[in-house]
Amino acid sequence: MLESLTTLIGPLDKEAMAETQKHLDNLTKPPGSLGVLENIALKLAGITGSSYPTIKDKAVVVMAGDHGVVAQGVTPWPQEVTCQMVYNFVNGGAAINVLTRHAGARVVVVDIGVATDITSSQVLSRKVKYGTDDMAVGPAMSREEALRAIETGREVVWEEIDQGVGLIGTGEMGIGNTTPSSAILAAFSGYPLERIVGRGTGCDDERLRLKINVIERALAVNQPDPRDAVDVLAKVGGLEIAGLTGCILGAAARRVPVVIDGFISSAAALVATRIEPRVRDYIIASHLSEEPGHEIMLNLMGLEAMLRMKMRLGEGTGAALAFNLIDASTKILREMATFSDAGVSEAS
Amino acid sequence: MLESLTTLIGPLDKEAMAETQKHLDNLTKPPGSLGVLENIALKLAGITGSSYPTIKDKAVVVMAGDHGVVAQGVTPWPQEVTCQMVYNFVNGGAAINVLTRHAGARVVVVDIGVATDITSSQVLSRKVKYGTDDMAVGPAMSREEALRAIETGREVVWEEIDQGVGLIGTGEMGIGNTTPSSAILAAFSGYPLERIVGRGTGCDDERLRLKINVIERALAVNQPDPRDAVDVLAKVGGLEIAGLTGCILGAAARRVPVVIDGFISSAAALVATRIEPRVRDYIIASHLSEEPGHEIMLNLMGLEAMLRMKMRLGEGTGAALAFNLIDASTKILREMATFSDAGVSEAS
Repeated sequence: MLESLTTLIGPLDKEAMAETQKHLDNLTKPPGSLGVLENIALKLAGITGSSYPTIKDKAVVVMAGDHGVVAQGVTPWPQEVTCQMVYNFVNGGAAINVLTRHAGARVVVVDIGVATDITSSQVLSRKVKYGTDDMAVGPAMSREEALRAIETGREVVWEEIDQGVGLIGTGEMGIGNTTPSSAILAAFSGYPLERIVGRGTGCDDERLRLKINVIERALAVNQPDPRDAVDVLAKVGGLEIAGLTGCILGAAARRVPVVIDGFISSAAALVATRIEPRVRDYIIASHLSEEPGHEIMLNLMGLEAMLRMKMRLGEGTGAALAFNLIDASTKILREMATFSDAGVSEAS
Repeated sequence: MLESLTTLIGPLDKEAMAETQKHLDNLTKPPGSLGVLENIALKLAGITGSSYPTIKDKAVVVMAGDHGVVAQGVTPWPQEVTCQMVYNFVNGGAAINVLTRHAGARVVVVDIGVATDITSSQVLSRKVKYGTDDMAVGPAMSREEALRAIETGREVVWEEIDQGVGLIGTGEMGIGNTTPSSAILAAFSGYPLERIVGRGTGCDDERLRLKINVIERALAVNQPDPRDAVDVLAKVGGLEIAGLTGCILGAAARRVPVVIDGFISSAAALVATRIEPRVRDYIIASHLSEEPGHEIMLNLMGLEAMLRMKMRLGEGTGAALAFNLIDASTKILREMATFSDAGVSEAS
């Protein structure tokens, strides 16, 4: 299943990119002086195969799931908040609702693993499991469950693409989910936990020490194999993380660009790039979060964030903010005058 | 004149800010987790005196001026490009036109010191001088000319505010203007030129060495007094830079937030903060440019950029991109649900 998905992920369209580059260099600005806006325009050309790409509908997919490891006290927030926030998303009152409306985008809320039943017709009900098991004492989920969650993410994203979505943002909700995200980074990178584990949405010093200790135990108990990305995901990951891995692979397979949000979304992207390195070319990084491990994650993937908002909320909020910048890049390509059009002299 | 302007710049409204802070902490997110979006909302409250600030019309003021120092060969671009780009602005084909349209903002183009006559009814004709004199051999302008340019900036911005503009962005066009901007930074900071002089819109190694050498001579010949900001501005500044200093002081005097663009706009802001330190509270930094001195400038003012776009174009392009993020911050304040509204539990 996973292999039949990854074989669909091809290289970027070099021809379209060359044409886009040529046009960018004719526009009335010093070559390259619009930096990331030019890079995004090029990337979109390579992904879509159109040298003048346009962004059609935009959606942020918010995957919600719970984490058995919260039993260890890794977060000050009660687990019920995951479910409560799902209803907040449905009612339009969360930060991601405000920011997607602002960006002219939709929110797609998916229950992939909330610990309680969710009864709302506005939530896609794709529960793989009622929350993960406590990774401090055993695997968070089975390999089959992890694969099923990836497949679920793929499915959701393909449904959106079938309905005309041309830009995907990744978002999540899951109380405790900086803990598995840090564990995933540790498993792949080998970095010391003190450098990559952060305060999430509000750990004090004592809880931070406890969190590091819990992750240490989870890694020792489960021995995730860094050469087997699905093994890492199953043993120390999360259902919403696995779902987002599927979203990212699924978007790339359909040649649709995918904007990743913060630490948790990037953990999902890291797993995706370990499953299929070519997926990296389809990912656009949005903001750099306050989690100390986030920059390390982005570096591992060779990605750079364009926004420094000091945010640490998740939900896809950083991805939604980046949508406007991505729209801007396509307009630069389509609306700027060339040197010859405008009668502007070039540099010597 | 300048003193009567700076006395109008008062402290932020602490009461409005306290109310805004209280509301932010009731919204369904961990306190402070929206980072810069929350900081901007607070700043807008303090500036406008409204705890639920809204942004009315937005405009980027683009000041255009020429530089006598281009005679020294500090840039590969011919001086005529300043004038040609002014016409490009008028015709809507430049990057700043695309990005302000995208942001729902206006561009206000001002000829404050272009070396040739500009004949367009769409350009505000406020020429103080036909370009500065060559600062490598003497002062760029007289103290009176610098003061007149500041006053011009103040006037332009007040006219915009009178027409309902509630958010100002600063932009500029002036072939060669990273040279005076670097000289201003050097005069105030004393940093070695090797650390703060960059490639502008495209210097090769040889030209970069020449540029450093020219700035060194300009500082030696003119001996600008860092305790006298207007002296620095007059001797090693530029007409568009002085105009933007006036824009920034003028906006603050009317309690209107002002978004600064890159290296040149920040040089103008640095001069403004040396004239009146309180003006800093009215400034929002947008992007961090590729000029090596830009971060140093922002640090000197205690400001941080929210965008990392690797841009080096000017015109106000980074400021225009930040407008969307500023709009987002006001919507967070107005549109998010509170914990009690949404029935979401809080952290322990």
